[in-house]
Amino acid sequence: MQPVLIAGEWRDADATGEFQAENPSTREALPDVYPVSSWADCDAALDSAAEAFAAMQEMSGDQIAAFLEAFADAIEANAEALVDMAFLETALPKSPRLADVELPRTTGQLRQAAAAARDGSWRQPTIDQANNIRSCYNGMGPVCVFGPNNFPFAFGSASGGDFAAAIAAGNPVIAKANSSHPGTTRIFAELAKQAADATGMPAGTVQLIYRTNHTVGLQLVGDSRMGATGYTGSQGAGLRLKAAADEAGKPIYLELSSINPVVFLPQVIEQKWQDLAEEFAGSCLMGTGQFCTNPGMVLLVEGETTESFIEEITQRFDGAAVGTLLSGSVERSLAESHEVLSGAGAEVLCGTGAGSGTGYCQANTLFRVSATKFLHDPETLQTEAFGNSSLVVVAKDVDQAAEVLGSLEGNLTGCIYSAEDGSDDEAYDALAPVLRQKVGRLLNDKMPTGVAVSPAMNHGGPFPATGHPGFTAVGIPAAVIRFAALHSYDNVRDHRLPEILRESYSGPAQRNVC
Amino acid sequence: MQPVLIAGEWRDADATGEFQAENPSTREALPDVYPVSSWADCDAALDSAAEAFAAMQEMSGDQIAAFLEAFADAIEANAEALVDMAFLETALPKSPRLADVELPRTTGQLRQAAAAARDGSWRQPTIDQANNIRSCYNGMGPVCVFGPNNFPFAFGSASGGDFAAAIAAGNPVIAKANSSHPGTTRIFAELAKQAADATGMPAGTVQLIYRTNHTVGLQLVGDSRMGATGYTGSQGAGLRLKAAADEAGKPIYLELSSINPVVFLPQVIEQKWQDLAEEFAGSCLMGTGQFCTNPGMVLLVEGETTESFIEEITQRFDGAAVGTLLSGSVERSLAESHEVLSGAGAEVLCGTGAGSGTGYCQANTLFRVSATKFLHDPETLQTEAFGNSSLVVVAKDVDQAAEVLGSLEGNLTGCIYSAEDGSDDEAYDALAPVLRQKVGRLLNDKMPTGVAVSPAMNHGGPFPATGHPGFTAVGIPAAVIRFAALHSYDNVRDHRLPEILRESYSGPAQRNVC
Repeated sequence: MQPVLIAGEWRDADATGEFQAENPSTREALPDVYPVSSWADCDAALDSAAEAFAAMQEMSGDQIAAFLEAFADAIEANAEALVDMAFLETALPKSPRLADVELPRTTGQLRQAAAAARDGSWRQPTIDQANNIRSCYNGMGPVCVFGPNNFPFAFGSASGGDFAAAIAAGNPVIAKANSSHPGTTRIFAELAKQAADATGMPAGTVQLIYRTNHTVGLQLVGDSRMGATGYTGSQGAGLRLKAAADEAGKPIYLELSSINPVVFLPQVIEQKWQDLAEEFAGSCLMGTGQFCTNPGMVLLVEGETTESFIEEITQRFDGAAVGTLLSGSVERSLAESHEVLSGAGAEVLCGTGAGSGTGYCQANTLFRVSATKFLHDPETLQTEAFGNSSLVVVAKDVDQAAEVLGSLEGNLTGCIYSAEDGSDDEAYDALAPVLRQKVGRLLNDKMPTGVAVSPAMNHGGPFPATGHPGFTAVGIPAAVIRFAALHSYDNVRDHRLPEILRESYSGPAQRNVC
Repeated sequence: MQPVLIAGEWRDADATGEFQAENPSTREALPDVYPVSSWADCDAALDSAAEAFAAMQEMSGDQIAAFLEAFADAIEANAEALVDMAFLETALPKSPRLADVELPRTTGQLRQAAAAARDGSWRQPTIDQANNIRSCYNGMGPVCVFGPNNFPFAFGSASGGDFAAAIAAGNPVIAKANSSHPGTTRIFAELAKQAADATGMPAGTVQLIYRTNHTVGLQLVGDSRMGATGYTGSQGAGLRLKAAADEAGKPIYLELSSINPVVFLPQVIEQKWQDLAEEFAGSCLMGTGQFCTNPGMVLLVEGETTESFIEEITQRFDGAAVGTLLSGSVERSLAESHEVLSGAGAEVLCGTGAGSGTGYCQANTLFRVSATKFLHDPETLQTEAFGNSSLVVVAKDVDQAAEVLGSLEGNLTGCIYSAEDGSDDEAYDALAPVLRQKVGRLLNDKMPTGVAVSPAMNHGGPFPATGHPGFTAVGIPAAVIRFAALHSYDNVRDHRLPEILRESYSGPAQRNVC
């Protein structure tokens, strides 16, 4: 059985069970056996993390940056092992996806986080000279990261965006591996531990457990030693963790579900429906649809060309190769969502049912429903079908399309395509304000599947897309603030202040002096 | 029965009950009768607020600023009526407290919020030119404000910090009056409505209900039309509202309780125990101790001078005039807290029991407990006793004092007094890092009761002081961000962007262009 990483040591877990990952391409179990950790493992990790946190609060941003950069270097030096393991565990293509897209994104994030740690940009130092009150953001405490199944590198528990943001803010991380890629997470934790040791970080900076039972997981996020939790994954498990964290008054940042509505307005459909069909089907089936921002709903207005567009995307879905899904659980969940949508009256345009591959898969699936029927049961019909699947909603007119958007829950993204000549502008003006309030990122004329690591990105949105519409999981320094506490210093003697607030500070941070 | 303010009209409530406020100086009911509103009132208010929110999202910051400034002017023009009513309902002294301190603070906050609305400083506009992604904070939706009993102006539901911050971010406010000063809140709502009408704000910009039953209150904060809630008040009611908001995924900002520990280190006690006793007793009894940041716990290290200090503060508590409490409920709650502390083994140094006034009061009360006993039951012994009361905790040594600080829950403030000659510095270095993690504002050599409206203020702290350690309720623009959603615009055509993100923008906001 694989050991866990606690207090700087790879040691035997206090295991209450065990599990193996599967190769999604073959549906067969992979050889490594991983432990289900008891509370004793979590308790030990929390103690070590609390100790590491105290030490990290006294460290310079430079030292934390050095760790993140050494880790990024180590990832690059071990790219092949990571790509091989992630391919085995997730069936995501080695190239370009894992090796050429996700890995550079991951090291890029870590280096951006390092830059933020170094320049203090996320700390927002504020100095009120008249009152001698100063404030800045500091770390918040140990952060537990539950990474999702679909980005084993860029959102991985011991390597991804939450990890980088938590460390940049001076917090140790307790990584809870995603059960579908424990081996990948283990390699990251090994590299992180080596980088931490080499750069003089405390033992509890990065710790790894693989799995716990529900009760232990809830206890973990609500523990008094915990600072905050970052969770990306299924809504069911996420809501249980949220309830436990909320009750304990601990911040928890969630990314739970999103159908990412895309609206094609009548004139743009009229003008270039074939191009749009290609763009949409490509975005929707890319990566077998397993992106947080995958367009799971298309909203159209009735019309002759609309029917041609729907026929075109149906053909494209039907004709496209069927990709492998990340796991048996994704396959089951997708099949269940299809049943829910069918049961609520959505008509099958193509697909539903097992795909023809040897791995986990479902046929590329397209549903259709009238807006009238959608509005009859919007809650059920906006069920997320995570995978290579989408729902076409056809409204009688723009007013009814606005009603559909008004009935949506919170989403990460929302997109409106409109004619370049302005002929859709009236419709745009009717729909965009409604959609704006439902999403974190509003797009024009562009599919939502790309999520640039940009300071202007919002990979967030109203509940249940996330837990709080003021925060983003992607984009630095904004993502770092999630794991920071606001600390005010009132009449505190100068030499006792954090360096960034002292009179003598001459570092790179822009300070707000008033 | 007094009408409620819904959808721009003062109209009869759909009442399920009624109540009257009391004059705390006489314990007698005041003549005005106020309604307990049903869900129908809340539902109507939510509809109107949603409509107002949509309109406010299209408004310029200048227009919102004009409203806030007109309201501040109206408050000044009606200062006498406000002071008279608040004195009747709260027994807080007319001068200097209400007229010369709290009222100018209130209008000052409104004008600072207006300045923030005008200059867009809270919106953090960020422009990623290479990716054509832009982001800024916008309003979040209707905000419900539950104001506390102890600041009828500066934290009032229709006038205070949460109100000003919510409006500045472009959100309408549904004010839920504090039941102990409904008349004061009514005058503010009248003035706010006049100012809103005069400056062309939508009808639902400010609405007022006085009270609901528990079920209706929980439904209100969790409603899908609600953006967020600001609550300052008792922990019991606050935690119920938090659970309802959390379940609905709606942000709620809370200020629940805080004992604001003050540590006097051995050498500073040695050097000026009499001055410190005066300073401490003054801060503790000011306003009959009814401040959120009132020092409810004093932590000392054993010693001869420590005993002199304790004797001195006991005499000062004993000899000071007994102030009137805000309400019968504050009196009851204070008496209950005293019983809890006694029951857990705290020794009475002076007070406990009814005061001698005709109004609501309790004798100035000082408890003492050893740190050893405190650490035996820290949860009970850190019960907040809101009012003219404090608990002295005496530790054997600095290590034990650190243990006491480590056992505390989150607080708004924490303070350490130390000798100017550096002779306490070792002890300071042992205690300050522990205390820092427990509080939003760390003070040196200064009582916590003053809360400057400063951009560097943090009137917040870890749970249960507040619900999230990253936010402050006082200080602009930081307090405004609480009521803002992060909105990203990806490839959105320039003329469709908020003005602050457009290429042509030439306003005052500092934009982060990268």
